[in-house]
Amino acid sequence: MKLGVIGIGTVGEGVLKILSQEKDRLEAMFGREVEIKRICDIREKEFPFGEFNFTDNYREILDDKEIHTVVELIGGVGKAYEIAKEVLTSGRNLVCANKHLIALHGRELFTLAKENNVHFYFEAAVGGGIPVVTPLREGLFPNRFSRIRGVLNGTCNYMLKKMEEGMEYEQALQDAKDMGYAEADPTFDVAGIDTGHKISVLSYLAWGELVDFSEISITGIDKLTKKDVEDAARDGKRYKLLGEASVTEGRTSICVSPQLVGCDELLYSVEGVYNAVETEGSYTGKTVFYGEGAGMDATASAVVSDIYKVLLNGSWN
Amino acid sequence: MKLGVIGIGTVGEGVLKILSQEKDRLEAMFGREVEIKRICDIREKEFPFGEFNFTDNYREILDDKEIHTVVELIGGVGKAYEIAKEVLTSGRNLVCANKHLIALHGRELFTLAKENNVHFYFEAAVGGGIPVVTPLREGLFPNRFSRIRGVLNGTCNYMLKKMEEGMEYEQALQDAKDMGYAEADPTFDVAGIDTGHKISVLSYLAWGELVDFSEISITGIDKLTKKDVEDAARDGKRYKLLGEASVTEGRTSICVSPQLVGCDELLYSVEGVYNAVETEGSYTGKTVFYGEGAGMDATASAVVSDIYKVLLNGSWN
Repeated sequence: MKLGVIGIGTVGEGVLKILSQEKDRLEAMFGREVEIKRICDIREKEFPFGEFNFTDNYREILDDKEIHTVVELIGGVGKAYEIAKEVLTSGRNLVCANKHLIALHGRELFTLAKENNVHFYFEAAVGGGIPVVTPLREGLFPNRFSRIRGVLNGTCNYMLKKMEEGMEYEQALQDAKDMGYAEADPTFDVAGIDTGHKISVLSYLAWGELVDFSEISITGIDKLTKKDVEDAARDGKRYKLLGEASVTEGRTSICVSPQLVGCDELLYSVEGVYNAVETEGSYTGKTVFYGEGAGMDATASAVVSDIYKVLLNGSWN
Repeated sequence: MKLGVIGIGTVGEGVLKILSQEKDRLEAMFGREVEIKRICDIREKEFPFGEFNFTDNYREILDDKEIHTVVELIGGVGKAYEIAKEVLTSGRNLVCANKHLIALHGRELFTLAKENNVHFYFEAAVGGGIPVVTPLREGLFPNRFSRIRGVLNGTCNYMLKKMEEGMEYEQALQDAKDMGYAEADPTFDVAGIDTGHKISVLSYLAWGELVDFSEISITGIDKLTKKDVEDAARDGKRYKLLGEASVTEGRTSICVSPQLVGCDELLYSVEGVYNAVETEGSYTGKTVFYGEGAGMDATASAVVSDIYKVLLNGSWN
């Protein structure tokens, strides 16, 4: 299978690394080859693990009829949205990690994938390296779900930990920036928008419908003070920024907010950049998926698993 | 897709229930029908959720050329082994929850499935309702695993909790029997054999090879006393019966034993009949899957997910 990768940031580099380092083993495992035909970014980069055909013009990937699967790792909803539509419309499979794109334009993109009989996979969009998208969609589907919630943003979770250790909010934010967890503009993280995108994707997987993003009630951690966090700790509790989706009278409602979690709950122990997703199903009861919610290697591993899923499902023929 | 189900115990009844109760929803979701053509058990049973074509002779299922997928829920390695071989050899897909069968005869059965180009799925064999078999095989495969371990037997885990609460071993065992968790002959559970079967299956998924079952070092919980458990609690620790597989110098070693787990580890919080599987991968780091490890509904949900996996993979054509 011939692949084009558009957007070689942290995750993109991880994908190239894993596909290169594990090439022999994965080919032996699956009996087929994944060939990275071309990669695209604004600037050419060099990597210690291999050489790649580089272009700074993504049309060279979209116009290449030999490329049957495109990995979009630009992020956001500008160029990524245009690329996603063109990839699916032209009958190619799409793999991405773009929760923002799915939360805002998922309905249109899922329809395009279906109409064009191609695959659109996004395991890395929620929970980084944790397999949760596929297990929810393909493992837990016999259930009717009553609730899904999770600790979905590592930056906020790291900051809350630091505030529990005595930092003021602004200090914790600076620390998260210094550690490379928070972006220069951390609004998407601390205002809860990233968590909103992710719980929106999970809610789609559970109930088959995307809620209008404007209908999601979102409160971030930016109003929490060191005192709030310390008071909670004195009661044996912790604030966690939770994304939560539930169904009441047939209507899905989604909200994001900092919530107090007691030490008897598994989510209490989810620390630092770890994420966890908890589902409540009519047959399986409570199921929790836990692991690294971000980082080059973990997220790239999820993208690579999607690439091989396309390969094994044979839709590129 | 036409289905035959052999062995209608607790899990079998759960499978019939879910397939009946969720029939309309699942057909709408996947656009195809799963038809239970015949069910087999020693005695005919009646169910409030539907009527089924019953036989007490499993040959009526194996000889029916219209049945392309057989669900084996007898358990054990006697008749179940003969049935599994015949199903695969005759070019039908096999779904089971039988860790004992896989741990002892997996090599032969995997080869038969491959030779006959059919599917052999067993999500329910480990961790009951937790999706862990498929996520490990199809989600985390980019990793090289260093270790996999888990709390895999709900009966033992329940008994250890009761001993922490003050019961002697024999009392805890009787309590587990009264609750319906432990069988009349609980040897497989308390001596660690069931855990051995399950960690053997997980190890196959991680490294692609089954270890000879006789090479697995197994210690159960039957030598633990109330005093051991209380002493551990005073140190802020708990005994958990862990199945653990790791690779050292290219060699997989597996052991089952009661181990002390500290409260800073997620496995510490896995109580009662809950199970958890923890994997350590080269790219994803630590990932934990947690949920109900047993019970009619949870285990049946996993079997149903396998049935639909066969349906969607199209191998019955």
